[in-house]
Amino acid sequence: MNELKVFTIKKNIHEDNKKTANETRDFLKRHGACFINVMSSPGSGKTTALARTIVELKAQLRIGVIEADVDSDVDARAIMQAGGKAVQMHTDGLCHLDATMARGGLEELGVEDLDLVFLENIGNLICPVAYDVGAAKSVAILSVPEGDDKPLKYPMIFEKVDALIVSKIDVMPHFDFQMRLLEERARKLNEDILIFPLSAKTGEGFSAWTDWLKAQIKA
Amino acid sequence: MNELKVFTIKKNIHEDNKKTANETRDFLKRHGACFINVMSSPGSGKTTALARTIVELKAQLRIGVIEADVDSDVDARAIMQAGGKAVQMHTDGLCHLDATMARGGLEELGVEDLDLVFLENIGNLICPVAYDVGAAKSVAILSVPEGDDKPLKYPMIFEKVDALIVSKIDVMPHFDFQMRLLEERARKLNEDILIFPLSAKTGEGFSAWTDWLKAQIKA
Repeated sequence: MNELKVFTIKKNIHEDNKKTANETRDFLKRHGACFINVMSSPGSGKTTALARTIVELKAQLRIGVIEADVDSDVDARAIMQAGGKAVQMHTDGLCHLDATMARGGLEELGVEDLDLVFLENIGNLICPVAYDVGAAKSVAILSVPEGDDKPLKYPMIFEKVDALIVSKIDVMPHFDFQMRLLEERARKLNEDILIFPLSAKTGEGFSAWTDWLKAQIKA
Repeated sequence: MNELKVFTIKKNIHEDNKKTANETRDFLKRHGACFINVMSSPGSGKTTALARTIVELKAQLRIGVIEADVDSDVDARAIMQAGGKAVQMHTDGLCHLDATMARGGLEELGVEDLDLVFLENIGNLICPVAYDVGAAKSVAILSVPEGDDKPLKYPMIFEKVDALIVSKIDVMPHFDFQMRLLEERARKLNEDILIFPLSAKTGEGFSAWTDWLKAQIKA
């Protein structure tokens, strides 16, 4: 296991975000690494879902994660423990990542030896959505305890992502959450959205999600 | 029940936020209304906790809520159903409220007939923390499903608030959440923070929270 890198990154206000994002996509294409931007609220289970994804796929794919947090390194340590390559990026209080910050993370991580790289974005349903970070695909995670009304209140993220993970489905009996209602509300905003209900605790639903990831790498 | 007001507010970038916040405090003092800023992640149960607070206190206090959301009016409707006075403020995609926006909400709501006014801020653990909205007290809500590690990852909000509600304690048996660990981590950032574990479903813990609210009005 590599030593954990922790670094602080500052926003460059003069950048041309879209240009940097496109350069990142070209760079990753050359290296054959698929880059996925993962966004959600704090506490929706991003790290736990990614750690289980690594456990399920590590025999077949080499996976890295850029962990972005305001503070702490607990997430990057969890990823390394699952068998992934990880760097911890500190955002110095910022509420989102842009393409330059994501590129810094990719360079710190090193992508030459990876098939799949996740950016675990800052826990925030609003600000990160506005920034193209150079990813091939973007994924939102919504946990069952957050409620099936979130597409009504935070529509932008549901409009923008390619896929939606509905996490923590093992606790569904303890919450007033209707999957059909959530799906209807999400599809009303984005008719092409793929929805993967899953539980990182029981493993339920992971095969559909990991099959989709494998298809992205072949694409 | 009054008719529900829904309006969109834009940020005034030329404001002096602190000055406006102080004017709001003077204005509320003259009207004898206690104003409380409530911040949390999306889906932590802000509206449900406030609706139950209204049910518990409405025989004694006149309560109003300014609901701030990117979109939808479901929260304001829930507050009105509980017996509170409410307005729904739409933030047009913004991730936080400042003092001018909060003042706009207070004016739309009307505070002359109220003892207690809550601002239910945008669901976001990062951006709203930086803005003084003119409240007498600020409160964070963290729900059990979000995890006891949040003070490590989003320290600013725990440093700044007067009180922390730990919501959804009824589902504690289904999550790996240690209340003592959460309390230790929160108090390490803010030794004076008051912590109210409660469940809006069962009512457990509400009396300590409502007693604190009543004491704020007398203060």
